[in-house]
Amino acid sequence: MNSTIISIGNELLSGQENSNAAWIAQKLTTNGINVIKIYTIADEEKDILNTINVSFSEADIIIITGGLGPTNDDITKNTLCKYFKCDIRFSESAYKNIEKIFKNRGFSFTNADKKQAEIPEFAKAIPNLQGTAPGLWFDQDNKTLVAMPGVPFEMKMMFDGFIIPQLKVKYCLPVIYSRTILTQGIGESYLSDLIAVWEKSIPKNIKLAYLPVPGIVKLRLTGSDENNGQITNTIENLITGLQLIISEYIFGYDNQKLEEIIGALLIQKNATVCTAESCTGGYISHLITSCPGSSEYFKGAVIAYANETKSNLLNIDKSLIEAHGAVSEEVVKAMAINAKNILNTTYSIAITGIAGPGGGSASKSVGTVWIAVASPDNVISKMFLFGENRLLNITRSAYTALNMLRKELLKD
Amino acid sequence: MNSTIISIGNELLSGQENSNAAWIAQKLTTNGINVIKIYTIADEEKDILNTINVSFSEADIIIITGGLGPTNDDITKNTLCKYFKCDIRFSESAYKNIEKIFKNRGFSFTNADKKQAEIPEFAKAIPNLQGTAPGLWFDQDNKTLVAMPGVPFEMKMMFDGFIIPQLKVKYCLPVIYSRTILTQGIGESYLSDLIAVWEKSIPKNIKLAYLPVPGIVKLRLTGSDENNGQITNTIENLITGLQLIISEYIFGYDNQKLEEIIGALLIQKNATVCTAESCTGGYISHLITSCPGSSEYFKGAVIAYANETKSNLLNIDKSLIEAHGAVSEEVVKAMAINAKNILNTTYSIAITGIAGPGGGSASKSVGTVWIAVASPDNVISKMFLFGENRLLNITRSAYTALNMLRKELLKD
Repeated sequence: MNSTIISIGNELLSGQENSNAAWIAQKLTTNGINVIKIYTIADEEKDILNTINVSFSEADIIIITGGLGPTNDDITKNTLCKYFKCDIRFSESAYKNIEKIFKNRGFSFTNADKKQAEIPEFAKAIPNLQGTAPGLWFDQDNKTLVAMPGVPFEMKMMFDGFIIPQLKVKYCLPVIYSRTILTQGIGESYLSDLIAVWEKSIPKNIKLAYLPVPGIVKLRLTGSDENNGQITNTIENLITGLQLIISEYIFGYDNQKLEEIIGALLIQKNATVCTAESCTGGYISHLITSCPGSSEYFKGAVIAYANETKSNLLNIDKSLIEAHGAVSEEVVKAMAINAKNILNTTYSIAITGIAGPGGGSASKSVGTVWIAVASPDNVISKMFLFGENRLLNITRSAYTALNMLRKELLKD
Repeated sequence: MNSTIISIGNELLSGQENSNAAWIAQKLTTNGINVIKIYTIADEEKDILNTINVSFSEADIIIITGGLGPTNDDITKNTLCKYFKCDIRFSESAYKNIEKIFKNRGFSFTNADKKQAEIPEFAKAIPNLQGTAPGLWFDQDNKTLVAMPGVPFEMKMMFDGFIIPQLKVKYCLPVIYSRTILTQGIGESYLSDLIAVWEKSIPKNIKLAYLPVPGIVKLRLTGSDENNGQITNTIENLITGLQLIISEYIFGYDNQKLEEIIGALLIQKNATVCTAESCTGGYISHLITSCPGSSEYFKGAVIAYANETKSNLLNIDKSLIEAHGAVSEEVVKAMAINAKNILNTTYSIAITGIAGPGGGSASKSVGTVWIAVASPDNVISKMFLFGENRLLNITRSAYTALNMLRKELLKD
C-alpha cells in the first residue's frame, strides 16, 4: 500500500518548518502504509490539481494538510471540488460539531465559522474535535484522498482518531510489527560500523531506519505480519542480537524518553534527584521537568553559571576553583555532592564545561565537559569532548548526563 | 527566478523531520529566489531522475540535499552522473579538502573517504569545510542544479559560503529587501484580525508571511528592488504603520532572538540577571544561556520545583506558601526579590504555575501562571492562563517572562 503526503501552504515554501509531514509519515509507515513522496506546495489551484493528479498515478492513498481554514488564502476545499467535479454542500454533522466547540468555549460564532460546515458533495466529513474545519474523506475507486487542517493538534487528533482506523478497515491493513531501539553515547556512523554484520542479517521483509536526533540515535525495525505471526519473532530475535553488540548504548525502546525512563526508575526506588548545572544552563532540569508528574521525584536545581554562584549557592570552595579551574573533576564532584546535600535528594547530576564558541584555552578546549552523578553511597565522574557547536554541545551533555544517572539507578 | 528543493533520503519518508528544506527555503526566498515546490523522495534512482526532470521543467534552480555520503545507500552522485550522462572523475581540489579535514582532526583516512573526492565529470566541486562529501554544481543551459550533503551544519556552511554567492553572480539576483517583525504576547489569528486593514494596504510586489512558532509570531515582509530602490522605503513605511497598531507586541526585528535582545540590554546597562523558576523548570535559564557570552550577565538560577526547595534555597516562608498557595502573586514576588538578593543580581525573573496536565484545582486551573520581574527599585507581577498543553505552556511562559524583563529593562 503506497501513499503520498501533500503539505499545502505558502509559508512552508518560505521558511516555516513542516513538522506535520514527518509526523504523518511515521504514523503511516508504522501502520504498514509506505510513504513514497512528500510534496510541499503553494496555495495555488494549478499546483494542487497537478500534484493530486500525479499522486493518484503513483499512490493508493493521498494525505493532504493545510488550506482548509476560513480565510481567502485557504483554497484547498474549493480546489478539491474542482478536482472531483462536485459542488459544495452543507454538512449537518460538521455544523453540529462546530456548534459544540463554540458552546464549550463559551463563544458565539460568525458567518465565517458557519461556512466551515460546508464541504464538497462527494466528501465525507471527518470530525474535528479541536477546531472548526472538518477533515474531508474522498473515495476514488479503490483509492483514497484525505484532507486535514494544518493546525498540528487538530490534525493529529483527527488522524489518530479517525483516519488511521478507517484506513485499516478500508484496506485491511496488515498487522505491522515495529520496534525502535534507542541508543545514546554513539554517533550514527560509528553505530553503523559496529552493527554492519548484524545489519546484513536483516531479512528483506524487515526494514531498518536510522533516525538520529542530537545526542540520540534511534534504530527502527518494521515488518508486516502478512503470513503467520513470524515477523514478531524475527524482529525480537534481531533485537536480542543487537543487544549482544551494543547493550552499553541502548537506553530504551519505542516511544520512551530518556528523561521518562529516569523518572520511572526514581519513582520505583522512591528516590529523588536534583541537578547542579553550569554549561548546560538548566537544560537538564528542563528535560526532566518536561515530563508530567516530575514533581514527584525532582526537587529542583541550582544553575551555577557564575563561579560566585557556585560558591554562594553550592558552597564550592573558591580555592578549589582556583586550584583546578571551574571545569575540572574536583569541582564537578563537589557540585554533585553539595547539590545532593543542599537540595536533600537521593541522587544528583552535576555538570561543568565550556559550551563555546568562546572560553577555550590551550589545556581545555571548547567542548570539554565534566559530568558527575552522586548516588547515596558514591560519586562517579567522567570527562567528555563534545565539539564546538554550542547548542549541540549542550544537548549532548544533557543526554549523556541523564544516561549516566540511568546507569547509576540500575546499579543496585 | 524559480527554484525547487529536493530532499533525498528514505529516513525522511518514515518519520525523520526535514529541517534542511525549511532552512534552505528561507535563504532562497530572502535572496529573491522563489521556492515553488519542495520534494521529499526516497534514495531510489528512478525517483531521483523523475523528480529532477520535472523540476527542470518548472524551475531555474534545483537544490538537492542528501545521499552524498560514502555508504551504499547514498546513490545521489551516481544518479547525477546518469542524469547528466557523464562519468566519475577524481577531483584534486576535493581530495585536498578531505586531506585537510582529516589532518586537522588527527585521523588517518580510508579508501571510502578517498572515494569522496570522486565527482561527476560535468560538476564543479563545492568545498565542504566541515566534512568529506563535496557539494556538486551543475550548469545546464541557463539553469543550475546543486547537490549538497544532508548533514545540516555541513550543508549550511556550504550554502551560505558558496552557493548563495555563486547564484548571485550567475543570475544577477535582484537586491531583495526583507524585514521580519517579531511579536510576542498575541496569537496568530488575533494578530491577523488586528492588522487586517494594514495588511490590505500592502502593495502587490511585497509579500507578507506569517511565521508562528510557540510563544512568538513573526511577520516577514519581502520585496524585490528591481526598479529604483523604492521597495526599501515602502517596506520601512509599512513597518512604521505596523508599529502604530501593535507596538506593545513587537519585541524585535529580523534574526534577533528575545534572549539575545535581553542580553544586549543587560550588557548596555552593565546589569546582571538570574531566574527563580518553578513551572518552567529551567527553560528560561536554558534560553538565556543558549546565547554565547551569556556568562557576562547571567549569574545563575534556582529551579525551585518542590516547595521545600522554595523555602530552603529561596527563603520563601512556608507560611506564605500555606496562606496563598505556591502559585500566587505573593509567592512569585517573594521568589523574585529573594533570588535577586541571594544571587546578587540587578534584575531577576520569577515564575510559578501549573504546567499540567495534572495539578489544577477549582480555583486554579491548569495553565495558571504567575510571573514576576524584580528591578533595582521595584517588582512587577502578572497572572496568565496559558492552556493545558504542558510543553506549549512552558514555552509561552518563558517567552512571556523574558518579554516582561525586556520591557522593564527599557523603562529607565
